[in-house]
Amino acid sequence: MKISVHRAPGTRDFLPEEMALRRYVRKVIEETFELYGFQPLETPAFERLDVLTGKYGEEADRLIFKIMKRGEELEAAKLSGDLADLGLRYDLTVPLARVVAMNRGELTFPFKRYQIQPVWRAERQQKGRYREFVQCDVDIVGTTSLAADAEIIALTDHVLHRLGIPGYRIHLNHRKLLQAIAQAASIPDERFLEMCVTIDKADKIGLNGVWEELANKGFITEQIVRLKEMLSAPHDPNVALQHIQPFLEKLESGQIALRETTAFLSHLQDMNVPRERVSLTLHLARGLDYYTGPIFETLVETPRIGSITGGGRYDNLIGMFCGEAIPAVGTSLGIERIIEVMRELKLFGEISEGSARVLVAVFSPETENEALKIAAELRRAGVPTEVFLESNKKLGKQFAYADKKRIPYVIVAGPDEISQGVVTLKNLQTGEQKVVDRAQIIEELNQRFRLE
Amino acid sequence: MKISVHRAPGTRDFLPEEMALRRYVRKVIEETFELYGFQPLETPAFERLDVLTGKYGEEADRLIFKIMKRGEELEAAKLSGDLADLGLRYDLTVPLARVVAMNRGELTFPFKRYQIQPVWRAERQQKGRYREFVQCDVDIVGTTSLAADAEIIALTDHVLHRLGIPGYRIHLNHRKLLQAIAQAASIPDERFLEMCVTIDKADKIGLNGVWEELANKGFITEQIVRLKEMLSAPHDPNVALQHIQPFLEKLESGQIALRETTAFLSHLQDMNVPRERVSLTLHLARGLDYYTGPIFETLVETPRIGSITGGGRYDNLIGMFCGEAIPAVGTSLGIERIIEVMRELKLFGEISEGSARVLVAVFSPETENEALKIAAELRRAGVPTEVFLESNKKLGKQFAYADKKRIPYVIVAGPDEISQGVVTLKNLQTGEQKVVDRAQIIEELNQRFRLE
Repeated sequence: MKISVHRAPGTRDFLPEEMALRRYVRKVIEETFELYGFQPLETPAFERLDVLTGKYGEEADRLIFKIMKRGEELEAAKLSGDLADLGLRYDLTVPLARVVAMNRGELTFPFKRYQIQPVWRAERQQKGRYREFVQCDVDIVGTTSLAADAEIIALTDHVLHRLGIPGYRIHLNHRKLLQAIAQAASIPDERFLEMCVTIDKADKIGLNGVWEELANKGFITEQIVRLKEMLSAPHDPNVALQHIQPFLEKLESGQIALRETTAFLSHLQDMNVPRERVSLTLHLARGLDYYTGPIFETLVETPRIGSITGGGRYDNLIGMFCGEAIPAVGTSLGIERIIEVMRELKLFGEISEGSARVLVAVFSPETENEALKIAAELRRAGVPTEVFLESNKKLGKQFAYADKKRIPYVIVAGPDEISQGVVTLKNLQTGEQKVVDRAQIIEELNQRFRLE
Repeated sequence: MKISVHRAPGTRDFLPEEMALRRYVRKVIEETFELYGFQPLETPAFERLDVLTGKYGEEADRLIFKIMKRGEELEAAKLSGDLADLGLRYDLTVPLARVVAMNRGELTFPFKRYQIQPVWRAERQQKGRYREFVQCDVDIVGTTSLAADAEIIALTDHVLHRLGIPGYRIHLNHRKLLQAIAQAASIPDERFLEMCVTIDKADKIGLNGVWEELANKGFITEQIVRLKEMLSAPHDPNVALQHIQPFLEKLESGQIALRETTAFLSHLQDMNVPRERVSLTLHLARGLDYYTGPIFETLVETPRIGSITGGGRYDNLIGMFCGEAIPAVGTSLGIERIIEVMRELKLFGEISEGSARVLVAVFSPETENEALKIAAELRRAGVPTEVFLESNKKLGKQFAYADKKRIPYVIVAGPDEISQGVVTLKNLQTGEQKVVDRAQIIEELNQRFRLE
């Protein structure tokens, strides 16, 4: 009986080779997070549906995987129509908010946590788009200090630098700058979000495309001209700030925005974030229904893959769960896209797949027990070792196995070697072969590993 | 607006303190697995329902969390009644079988993989029973060699030894021994499973309870007397084997079972598994509808928590997916129970929660920039560092923060210190305080860390 062997659509298996890359990236990220004093958190794969829904907007709510009620509850639900009670995690921010709300008596604030776990979205099937992917979030909860926002940027820069990503640029903006800009262009509050959605497209459709779309949406020429003057700023943070200053400094909201942005940029300098890695990008607007202060995302020039990190300050979301305002700032590192970039740019080099270093071959069924003993000795000494698990295969097959699994050394102990108390050690890369005293194997191997 | 902040029933959050323990255990396990040449695999959280169901029996099928269809498919399904198309992973064995079936052209056999991921079961709510828990499986696919079974046992012993679990014992049996025993007791094939279910309860109800239950089930006195003679064996593997030998050696099936068990035990000795850690436990029968050869589980004396590992040889399951027989043997390490045992027995000692080693305090808003610079320097030098993220809090509060987060050192740089090019370094454990030259901080700290 042969049965279905399909994977669920939009999901992936990670075999050892791929796992090695993913674990390497994850390790660098975790180590860097901990260098900044962030600590790990994990939450369950599913949450109650009422915790998940209504946080991301209607479009996103449709993408939540819903889990059916079970047993009697399901039977009862078939009449009422509410068939699901749980949903798979859609992001890591809502679970964070829930955890903070449930533990706010015990947590030490600012609560600096990171979380690296999969999330699930029922996206339409599309190449390169997955329904299960790992998110990597780092947030600081409980302070309005802009030093926290700067720390998130410094951390982002540190991670990308360590991973060796070339040519990345962290684009910054501030929601209050955007609001002051809208005010300076005489755009009424109720059209603010609409303006944001359009100018945010500058990366895709160019600034000229933005002016055109604004005109099509009925923004008047005077407003567009003002926006044009303000948004056509160079990317260098200080230059951009100087450029926008005269437009905003007469407004009270503008003064606050300028002061905060200046402080934010100055913190970045203190934290040693290289100036050429940072842009003040005034048309950056991302997800404004959610963010309340600085916002940021990272782009790479090649490959064209969209942003590899994105985040900002969101001072209201956690309050929705707590009934009291709790400010927060954080970012997502797009770990899947980062891996994609590193693969594309061949940045991984030689990463061990966790293969053993030595294969102990089995000369014949009669010598299997000696092979098992040698393997046990090596393992006790901390040498990652495989022993060939069948005693009736030709040595050639065993060498081919080592080769395929990229195990660099093979040890053979046939009857002659056993009676003489030696083994033959073969280096598969060079073909070199050497007879080694049984008592000296570990020393011999350790010497070779040290030289590698 | 305050909204619901409940966790889904039967699930847990892992805050930093708990995460530290879990990561420690996981790290020891992964390192040991790789010492034996096993490589990591990860599979998606959900599988197609037809892959999951019908593999574990009806009872288990009811415990699978089902995911509702989405969009138009859901609308159509409301008429047909098949509302779900996906299910959350119930264990790690079926996903392994699917991966082997889908990749058998590319994998190198024997395929030695481990997998540490959560599984989900809609268990009835009960203390200490979770609906999401991590499973940790290690399997060897593609060989019938009993050296593979022995390697799984050696690995189990190695992991538990490294974790420092006291008084564990790995109980072994062999399905073929059980079959021969049943034959020797004149128990017909069709009552074999029933016999197994009862004798497997010996740990709970005692052997006397077993004889009673067998009688109640209609096994005749003669059969029970024979079983009594055979199963009342001491636990020492060699003694138990000697005890059972005269009952089985006249049967052909008995000869095979004795020969294989002897080989299996001899491999264990070659692999240096301590004899006092192993029992041949003839009434061990676990999940026989699934296992085909050696079976094993590990028990600890205290706390009474059930088995902490369990596994065996299952030569038919993967074939269900492939349409060709592929033998396999493996075990689950009950990572959740192992953590429970270690917590209960206070085996964790001092495990770092990944807290920073240093807090750079902020003396006043005017000196915040210096604090940020010092923190950046420390982090560049690889010292896990926090900088206090608010500039207007009293130093006492900042010290309390470090204390609560178990950060051992605090650095303060007030205006006087800054003008003199020094900082004050305070050891929070001893209260000792020292003025250190700004350029010497990293050296001073590294020296202290080395001494710890």
